[in-house]
Amino acid sequence: MPTPLSPHRVVVIGSGFGGLFATKHLRRAPVEITLISKTPYHLFQPLLYQVTTGILSEGEIAAPIRDVLRDQSNARVIQGEVSDINLDARTVTSTLGDVVTQTPYDSLILAAGAGQSYFGNDQFAEYAPGMKSIDDALALRAQIFGAFEMAEVETDPDQRSAWLTFVVVGGGPTGVEMAGQLAELSRRSMKNNFRSIDPAQARVILVEAAPALLQVYGSTLSQRAKRALERHGVEVHLGARVTDIDTDGVEVTLSDNDTIRVAAKTKVWAAGVSASPLGNTLARQSGAELTHNGQLEVEPNLTLPGYPEVFVVGDMAATDTAGVAQVAIQGGEFAARLIARRLDGKPTDDEFRYHDKGIIATISRFNAIARVGPLKLSGFMAWALWLGVHLFYLVGFKNRVSVLMHWTITFLGRARSERTAPAPKPIRNDAPTGGRP
Amino acid sequence: MPTPLSPHRVVVIGSGFGGLFATKHLRRAPVEITLISKTPYHLFQPLLYQVTTGILSEGEIAAPIRDVLRDQSNARVIQGEVSDINLDARTVTSTLGDVVTQTPYDSLILAAGAGQSYFGNDQFAEYAPGMKSIDDALALRAQIFGAFEMAEVETDPDQRSAWLTFVVVGGGPTGVEMAGQLAELSRRSMKNNFRSIDPAQARVILVEAAPALLQVYGSTLSQRAKRALERHGVEVHLGARVTDIDTDGVEVTLSDNDTIRVAAKTKVWAAGVSASPLGNTLARQSGAELTHNGQLEVEPNLTLPGYPEVFVVGDMAATDTAGVAQVAIQGGEFAARLIARRLDGKPTDDEFRYHDKGIIATISRFNAIARVGPLKLSGFMAWALWLGVHLFYLVGFKNRVSVLMHWTITFLGRARSERTAPAPKPIRNDAPTGGRP
Repeated sequence: MPTPLSPHRVVVIGSGFGGLFATKHLRRAPVEITLISKTPYHLFQPLLYQVTTGILSEGEIAAPIRDVLRDQSNARVIQGEVSDINLDARTVTSTLGDVVTQTPYDSLILAAGAGQSYFGNDQFAEYAPGMKSIDDALALRAQIFGAFEMAEVETDPDQRSAWLTFVVVGGGPTGVEMAGQLAELSRRSMKNNFRSIDPAQARVILVEAAPALLQVYGSTLSQRAKRALERHGVEVHLGARVTDIDTDGVEVTLSDNDTIRVAAKTKVWAAGVSASPLGNTLARQSGAELTHNGQLEVEPNLTLPGYPEVFVVGDMAATDTAGVAQVAIQGGEFAARLIARRLDGKPTDDEFRYHDKGIIATISRFNAIARVGPLKLSGFMAWALWLGVHLFYLVGFKNRVSVLMHWTITFLGRARSERTAPAPKPIRNDAPTGGRP
Repeated sequence: MPTPLSPHRVVVIGSGFGGLFATKHLRRAPVEITLISKTPYHLFQPLLYQVTTGILSEGEIAAPIRDVLRDQSNARVIQGEVSDINLDARTVTSTLGDVVTQTPYDSLILAAGAGQSYFGNDQFAEYAPGMKSIDDALALRAQIFGAFEMAEVETDPDQRSAWLTFVVVGGGPTGVEMAGQLAELSRRSMKNNFRSIDPAQARVILVEAAPALLQVYGSTLSQRAKRALERHGVEVHLGARVTDIDTDGVEVTLSDNDTIRVAAKTKVWAAGVSASPLGNTLARQSGAELTHNGQLEVEPNLTLPGYPEVFVVGDMAATDTAGVAQVAIQGGEFAARLIARRLDGKPTDDEFRYHDKGIIATISRFNAIARVGPLKLSGFMAWALWLGVHLFYLVGFKNRVSVLMHWTITFLGRARSERTAPAPKPIRNDAPTGGRP
């Protein structure tokens, strides 16, 4: 790669874990970075479910990306939706409002993440919002707390029970954590809040198509998670597929092929992801392969075949460990390091190797499951680990203090400080946000 | 008033200061209270401008009313919009979603407050959102922070300067506090956040039709407030009326009758209030007089003429001190006390007398003005008083701790923890903001 007289221009697309850590890793490199982000914030997506269920405020998990990078003088941030990448001209086109910006690059790091996928049933989105963005979280917060308000005034017992039924689709970490929190919310946090209904009577139903929850954790932990959720009153249906969704409920085809209908006003979609449509743009131009859920097949060093200056990291790259924050973080840092080494004229024949630091998911307060290398943990120890890890990766010291305070309020006490949300908007199908756990 | 065998039914309409304090004051009375509230939260409106400008989260100033009252067993809360009050049948009709609820009362406390008034120019609302609700605050938050994002990508200097111009209409406490915060936000909190623009170049323009800001504080304090704002870079126009508003700017007729046009993408309406339209409903049935801004003329004991069981408190009652939280608080408590005394068979010939505890408004950090009896304060002492008073009246210990932490972050530090907002709803300004353009 030629060393231009003017600084090497790096464009980073996406402000999720991949984009943010790549940018930060380049802070001392002789480069000019432009980070292009659809949202003005870095979303700490693993805690989005806590914004949804009233534990945390949106600001605590969504730090303004330009404030995070304010002291990194080689980085600028522009907000915008990327509409085109031209691999030959080496430019990125982004749009904000009526302003179209063209940004040229010498190196490109594509870290635009993944959005919700409804597996071809996009009409479900209207009734079962996803869990991908702050907008999703606040819309769902309004729906969830609003459902209890409706149940309190509703006099028809069937309608009342439909308002008090919550269906979570998808038994991955997000679905499990949502179901666990909905159970705690109704059984603990809402205590004594109502006079006509008993919020503890709320039904929380978790539907997963696979034969186990949280499959990547292995069968022992998976079964422990299931039992823990059931102990908290969650009804878990495995091997069950959601075949229809409308305003009033959900149709579920069970493992024995029986089809049941559940009357439920509130549905949460935590089932599928598909990578940013920017993958298509690159595949078309480079001839790279796309997986069924839109991820790009990349070289072992994360570059696009034929375009060594283009890196694809995180959920947009086809790896068998997508969906984990660490993959995006390590991929972003790997790309940044490779760019810096190239500029230094150092050997750059590295291959990206994911260093598995483990995975962890909470079930309820004081209860989580974790796999760290060969070690399998569950219960309070796993929960304490979850707490430490999440505080560590949360961006900003002030947010850590504030999140810790809200966790104390919710987990030691029983209140939720952030139950207020703006009135819900008509729900739309979701597009990718930069980055994902 | 007869003492019924079943408990005396009190219906309170509104969960603002009047409604909440009336309900709490009745906690030991032998009554059954139903509090009917349009929103599920008690809004601490004096701090709404801090949610708008990214200092506080919505949960910190909007506590769920049913959580606040969870231990008060003689009170139930129902969410709903009151569509009718029947003074003869003594029933209140409220609607939530598709559920209509009729609630009978023996005593009624009407505390539905006031909404924004555009003085007959309701088309302004589309371009200049008001400052009355959490929805307003979050929509404005998205607009304000989004304007800086637009300025950063905009290359046309005129458009850029329009994005960096903020017009606040109305020089009462809300307008003054908003203008002061917009100045601090752009000059302090956004420091080093941008590469193409200098946010400190933002213009903040405060337009007030009267010859002075904060007229009720008297001319000395009013002039001090004006000078302090100007020192922070706010352009103050007194005796100036906004005669037109559209997407791109504002037309202002100045005190000398010159008309100027200010190109400004962001406009905030903090000018007029008009009492809840429920006042009309009662005026029509009772023959009570309505003032020009929709307030009801009531008896000296705050009851509706001819209907001693109906109390009107706070902004809905015609008093010369409306708009101050203390008037609503004291009015609500007065009504509650009168109801309790009637049930006890005690004399009830009291008249409501407002005990003026003083008024206070912040200009910027460490700077406020206050009038406490004959005492006039300004500067740091007034600001310290403001801080203490607001913490005292904020509902909930947890919120107090959390607000104090956010104030430390913002006033001692310079950050704002809550800059993130959901994307604005399409009815607003076409400004691309918050999350999604």
